[in-house]
Amino acid sequence: MVTAQEHLLSLYQQVRSTTIGLTDGLTAEDMLLQSMEDASPAKWHLGHTTWFFEALVLDAYQPGYQRFNDQFHYLFNSYYESLGQRHPRPHRGMLSRPSLEQVMKFRLHVDEAMLSLLQSKELPNECWQRLELGLHHEMQHQELLITDQLHAFSFHHFHPIWKTLLHQPPVTSEAAPHSWVAQAGGLVPVGLSAERRIGDFAYDCETPIHQQYLRPYCLASRPVTNGEWLEFMTDGGYRDPQWWLSDGWACVNREGWQAPLYWQNKDDEWFRYTPHGLLPLDPDESVCHVSYFEADAYARWAGARLPTEFEWEVAARNYPIEGRCMEQGLWFPGKPLPGSDTALQHLYGNVWEWTQSPYLAFPGFEPLQGALGEYNGKFMCGQFVLKGGAFTSPEQLLRASYRNFFYPHQRWQATGVRLARYE
Amino acid sequence: MVTAQEHLLSLYQQVRSTTIGLTDGLTAEDMLLQSMEDASPAKWHLGHTTWFFEALVLDAYQPGYQRFNDQFHYLFNSYYESLGQRHPRPHRGMLSRPSLEQVMKFRLHVDEAMLSLLQSKELPNECWQRLELGLHHEMQHQELLITDQLHAFSFHHFHPIWKTLLHQPPVTSEAAPHSWVAQAGGLVPVGLSAERRIGDFAYDCETPIHQQYLRPYCLASRPVTNGEWLEFMTDGGYRDPQWWLSDGWACVNREGWQAPLYWQNKDDEWFRYTPHGLLPLDPDESVCHVSYFEADAYARWAGARLPTEFEWEVAARNYPIEGRCMEQGLWFPGKPLPGSDTALQHLYGNVWEWTQSPYLAFPGFEPLQGALGEYNGKFMCGQFVLKGGAFTSPEQLLRASYRNFFYPHQRWQATGVRLARYE
Amino acid sequence: MVTAQEHLLSLYQQVRSTTIGLTDGLTAEDMLLQSMEDASPAKWHLGHTTWFFEALVLDAYQPGYQRFNDQFHYLFNSYYESLGQRHPRPHRGMLSRPSLEQVMKFRLHVDEAMLSLLQSKELPNECWQRLELGLHHEMQHQELLITDQLHAFSFHHFHPIWKTLLHQPPVTSEAAPHSWVAQAGGLVPVGLSAERRIGDFAYDCETPIHQQYLRPYCLASRPVTNGEWLEFMTDGGYRDPQWWLSDGWACVNREGWQAPLYWQNKDDEWFRYTPHGLLPLDPDESVCHVSYFEADAYARWAGARLPTEFEWEVAARNYPIEGRCMEQGLWFPGKPLPGSDTALQHLYGNVWEWTQSPYLAFPGFEPLQGALGEYNGKFMCGQFVLKGGAFTSPEQLLRASYRNFFYPHQRWQATGVRLARYE
Amino acid sequence: MVTAQEHLLSLYQQVRSTTIGLTDGLTAEDMLLQSMEDASPAKWHLGHTTWFFEALVLDAYQPGYQRFNDQFHYLFNSYYESLGQRHPRPHRGMLSRPSLEQVMKFRLHVDEAMLSLLQSKELPNECWQRLELGLHHEMQHQELLITDQLHAFSFHHFHPIWKTLLHQPPVTSEAAPHSWVAQAGGLVPVGLSAERRIGDFAYDCETPIHQQYLRPYCLASRPVTNGEWLEFMTDGGYRDPQWWLSDGWACVNREGWQAPLYWQNKDDEWFRYTPHGLLPLDPDESVCHVSYFEADAYARWAGARLPTEFEWEVAARNYPIEGRCMEQGLWFPGKPLPGSDTALQHLYGNVWEWTQSPYLAFPGFEPLQGALGEYNGKFMCGQFVLKGGAFTSPEQLLRASYRNFFYPHQRWQATGVRLARYE
Repeated sequence: MVTAQEHLLSLYQQVRSTTIGLTDGLTAEDMLLQSMEDASPAKWHLGHTTWFFEALVLDAYQPGYQRFNDQFHYLFNSYYESLGQRHPRPHRGMLSRPSLEQVMKFRLHVDEAMLSLLQSKELPNECWQRLELGLHHEMQHQELLITDQLHAFSFHHFHPIWKTLLHQPPVTSEAAPHSWVAQAGGLVPVGLSAERRIGDFAYDCETPIHQQYLRPYCLASRPVTNGEWLEFMTDGGYRDPQWWLSDGWACVNREGWQAPLYWQNKDDEWFRYTPHGLLPLDPDESVCHVSYFEADAYARWAGARLPTEFEWEVAARNYPIEGRCMEQGLWFPGKPLPGSDTALQHLYGNVWEWTQSPYLAFPGFEPLQGALGEYNGKFMCGQFVLKGGAFTSPEQLLRASYRNFFYPHQRWQATGVRLARYE
Repeated sequence: MVTAQEHLLSLYQQVRSTTIGLTDGLTAEDMLLQSMEDASPAKWHLGHTTWFFEALVLDAYQPGYQRFNDQFHYLFNSYYESLGQRHPRPHRGMLSRPSLEQVMKFRLHVDEAMLSLLQSKELPNECWQRLELGLHHEMQHQELLITDQLHAFSFHHFHPIWKTLLHQPPVTSEAAPHSWVAQAGGLVPVGLSAERRIGDFAYDCETPIHQQYLRPYCLASRPVTNGEWLEFMTDGGYRDPQWWLSDGWACVNREGWQAPLYWQNKDDEWFRYTPHGLLPLDPDESVCHVSYFEADAYARWAGARLPTEFEWEVAARNYPIEGRCMEQGLWFPGKPLPGSDTALQHLYGNVWEWTQSPYLAFPGFEPLQGALGEYNGKFMCGQFVLKGGAFTSPEQLLRASYRNFFYPHQRWQATGVRLARYE
Repeated sequence: MVTAQEHLLSLYQQVRSTTIGLTDGLTAEDMLLQSMEDASPAKWHLGHTTWFFEALVLDAYQPGYQRFNDQFHYLFNSYYESLGQRHPRPHRGMLSRPSLEQVMKFRLHVDEAMLSLLQSKELPNECWQRLELGLHHEMQHQELLITDQLHAFSFHHFHPIWKTLLHQPPVTSEAAPHSWVAQAGGLVPVGLSAERRIGDFAYDCETPIHQQYLRPYCLASRPVTNGEWLEFMTDGGYRDPQWWLSDGWACVNREGWQAPLYWQNKDDEWFRYTPHGLLPLDPDESVCHVSYFEADAYARWAGARLPTEFEWEVAARNYPIEGRCMEQGLWFPGKPLPGSDTALQHLYGNVWEWTQSPYLAFPGFEPLQGALGEYNGKFMCGQFVLKGGAFTSPEQLLRASYRNFFYPHQRWQATGVRLARYE
Repeated sequence: MVTAQEHLLSLYQQVRSTTIGLTDGLTAEDMLLQSMEDASPAKWHLGHTTWFFEALVLDAYQPGYQRFNDQFHYLFNSYYESLGQRHPRPHRGMLSRPSLEQVMKFRLHVDEAMLSLLQSKELPNECWQRLELGLHHEMQHQELLITDQLHAFSFHHFHPIWKTLLHQPPVTSEAAPHSWVAQAGGLVPVGLSAERRIGDFAYDCETPIHQQYLRPYCLASRPVTNGEWLEFMTDGGYRDPQWWLSDGWACVNREGWQAPLYWQNKDDEWFRYTPHGLLPLDPDESVCHVSYFEADAYARWAGARLPTEFEWEVAARNYPIEGRCMEQGLWFPGKPLPGSDTALQHLYGNVWEWTQSPYLAFPGFEPLQGALGEYNGKFMCGQFVLKGGAFTSPEQLLRASYRNFFYPHQRWQATGVRLARYE
């Protein structure tokens, strides 16, 4: 039987090579682009995920380890105040040096040291925990690498194609209305135990288990589609303040939003930009790249609401973790599946689903000790929880308890909408 | 026995004259000041609260009512999109016209019409509801008038005195440490029924009653004092990122915060500016004019946390509504009271207490119909709930279920801190 | 015969009372408004011009003089770094205190002391020079008081009337095209001698006399009219980059300019806001409230150019100083006068005329010593010279050598356009 | 004898290959960096200078010419409104595509077509004029390429070295004080005739010849040195408002300037960053990377002034065009030369010398027709003229009449100071 440690060793190799695989089709120049402060260059993602293993595993657990380059600890630290000064986030796109080639050598150097370390017999449990965290950290950055790169490419007037699609899926307009799938509610445990075993990973912010009281509720059987979103637009959704939060309405007007991000209208036809280029808008696909403000306004317009993270988590627990994920290489959302009206579709993968839950500490939450305590806890203000994963998510990242989080105005992630209501 | 209607009639007269009483000591020039977009001139508060009765009561329920001046509906609408275009909020301080004298005439005109209307026998229930809402609305603006005016005066280099204090309270430094007062928690009902009777007022956002599960917890017996806050400062609290949320740390650095708002250091002595002028800082008084970011950082430094709004509400329900309120005319916080370690002090009045709860809809929340639905619901994003009231609050405004709310960076309200922890 | 000193004494009384006269029709609230950093409240103008005499004359030359209030030296210093710290310019509108009444008392206090001082026999020459400068300074502020107050009133949606016009002038559309009035040019002296006698005032920046070589040139016989400006607008002038400086084009797009400041279109008719209220646009009047960028673009569109300050000064020297000035109380521009095609009209008063000359030191320029050296010299960067005066200018301010100056994007002064070309 | 046309053909080959030579030591990643809106990536400079020949020469004069890629006309147009829409300037650093390799192919494609075109016998004169303009345009961009790249590298914390210096020059501190070199002044012709022959190139803004009257004056024999600048700093030059223009003082405080750009103090020793890395500051070298605001403040502190562009041009006409230029590959300023006190040193090359002259049209200036008229004329507002060239300038760019121009706050060009005074 494979031990948890053996599994992690194999996962290490897989995750690290998957990251590199994502950059197929990208040049060193592409990988230097930083389109906004929220996003980072692909090259920086490669360096930062590697720095994570060097700073938190090798420096601590590999006696005599020689760092590849001390300067990289200044360049590739993201936001860990306790790990020293760092290169300013808005200027990550100015790092032409180290070159992509140097960063690749840095990866090799660290990979060799890591594999050598991991084959030693007597590593303390915390080392394995940090390894596991580092792998999940890198999987998160895989997703960011895709969405950040797409955002950068969107500044090119001529819609570069990053990944060629061999078969472009046919555009359809056949989706049946969603049904409402009832959930019992009640006083239910949510979250996970803070006592984690290696191989059973979760972030600190998913813990501890605690009780939430839920009124009986329904979730829509599937996410909102592009076709449904077009109805909202046609009905003046982006021009009518009655649907919007006050901050959302200010944002719509300040930014001039009239459609989801990456949508373009040419001669009265809608298209949207994807890593596969500019594709015709498919009415049946799940809507994507909408902000919390838009998701919330849409729900109000539709006479419904967004689910809470707890409603989502409790309902999703019983479903298998399957869906359109990063590995499939189709980097756009899917369509409704034929099937029972009483089941929830597309819970995992496809599009991240905004919840109405602010990203907060669960009762009794204790951040990890030291630098790792900065991973999640200090972001618990002003952001909203998203659940389920997207076509940009590595499949192994996903679980019912996973809490993704973004600010309500952000929409460059693969974010969509599932409606909820009370019984 | 006094009917609810008779009570409202008497309350109307009291609230309206109290508002005017607050402006004692202010000139027409003082009452025109607008120091920032968040704040409004006192004169505008006088006009806006009056407009509320004209637009929502007299226009609807007084047949043949003649408005004082149609233009005032453009000038004194605050944020009701459904009630038409309005004067831009950042330019309220540009309204030298109408003059204060005209606004006072507007008040008289509306007061006469209101009193005449309210003496008629057959008013529909909704009219009484709107009247009651209008009175609570005006009480909220009484508090804002004080805090906005103080903020405006803080731009005067020479610390104008608005209200002379006959007896300046002695500075003391004798406060004993707070004790922890245990609360049972459990599955408890919070909030109020959406079915309200006249005379039993609550905002829509305080409804409906719903269940919350609370772990057993403790609240500090009293709010944090200035003396305790000075320890936080001396310990480098404003310079150490480990205590701060990421957004809070950015705010501290962007704004250059080193102490609560209105604190000034002269020759190594601390003072703080109040409506009574610049007073020596009293170590025993509750700390005031701190933001959520500061409250949260302080709590982390102190090894504790902020309470949730539900923890606060459940614990406070059993206490009488008494404390230092606006009517007492001492417009600064109080000091710890001698007494039992097992009771909570200063719950009502004194300083608003930040909770860790974002201002969100309760499950099943339904906003009021029409324009009044804009009163609360559209602000449910990005703000935090404060409980209990302050020295700036009209006493009748306060109740355990009252949910005040502000953004985490704001600190010009009379906001303080009470610590909490789990058992 | 009246001595220069006697003249100044009489001028002092006249200027000081004229300033107060300008505020007829304004309330204390009106006089507190500050609409932007560039502008100041009327009350502040009253205080600042008075401070000037106290700080630069009374403090220096009146032994035993008792200041009205030391704090006023902090509040009413404008930009004299050498005279100490001062209230931040963007917050002048926050000075509800001192009250207008207090500022009027300050004026009386200083006026009494000044009149007493000026009647003493043995004042040094520099004292008279400072007095004279102070009077011209106050006349400059008279003009600013009008334009700043108008700008502030323009934020009122309902167009307050400050000065009632008894007879509203008829709207006409009869102006003949301007003619070109030829000027010889050559090597000519411009500017004034730095040796000034009392009673023959000029600012330091108008000195010294120096030589400029001018090609033969022509000036338009009159300023551009509203009707001509409408042609520019109709021809797409505000939408075509070919007429604009690069910085001007950026400004047009950033600010959304489509017409001069204060113009409004209602139901296809043009109006413009003035101290006399919203008046129909008169095609024959000189265009006003245009920026340098607009003046320059118009000139290019018209196949002409703006004059240099030297071309203007040399041509204007031979004309009497007469025109529509502040004292006439018609606070909008005039119309072409019938008369010879070979003469220049409206050189003085009417509208300030933008020149293409940056505001620079004349060769050999020496600023005054001490604080007064900050009056002009430190602003010699990025601004353009305007000549001739406007309907807002006190008549005694005007002379051929006077150099007014503003930034190219500013248009809240009474600024218009006269065209020039080479022979 | 070589004809002007033959000379241009040879110059074409030289200029084009020199541009490529400048990029030695740069990677494709380096060449994508854009550090601010004012600067452009090196790759963009390569594309833009090539587009200039394609859009203005080949499209017009080569029948049947096939463009390399139509999209490049959107991507590489800089600011020519009359040549169509273009990629937004602030986002030039987002152009990872086309790749550097593609841009190099674009250069080859255009070079081949150009060489073929230029060998044909019957080209109209305007074609040669455009060719010549294109070459001078590219030489200007060579200079910008160096200064923009240096600015981009300055965001790297670890001071990348672009060009290795084989022999680092010794640091010295031996410079004698400058002498004053007297100039006669008088009514003198400046500028050049607008009638240009091929091979005798000048920009339109250097024309026409016109008369300027100059008072007798002196120029400093050499530019200000780093050592002299350190005295200014030590004397509190950056902290004392008396030396500064009002806009300059605001800039110093807003930007926190305490020294020239690229200066760094480590352990009380000064260094400055250059394309050759971080080098110790040499007191004898000419000071460089100072803004107009700093140059002007320094001159006032030194009891002198900046020269006018005309004073500089008239004095420099009689000197040979020689000095430290780009081709020498020493990309930092030089030191005083031993020699006569009566001669001017370092007029050409070394550092650009700020003049007090705003960049304006000469009397009678006519911009070129069509798109080329946008080259200079539309920038004649708010900028100051610099004379003489710098170590970053191609030698063939330089002549006494050349007018370089930048805004007074800009300091990323190789800009220094020569003092002037009147006799």
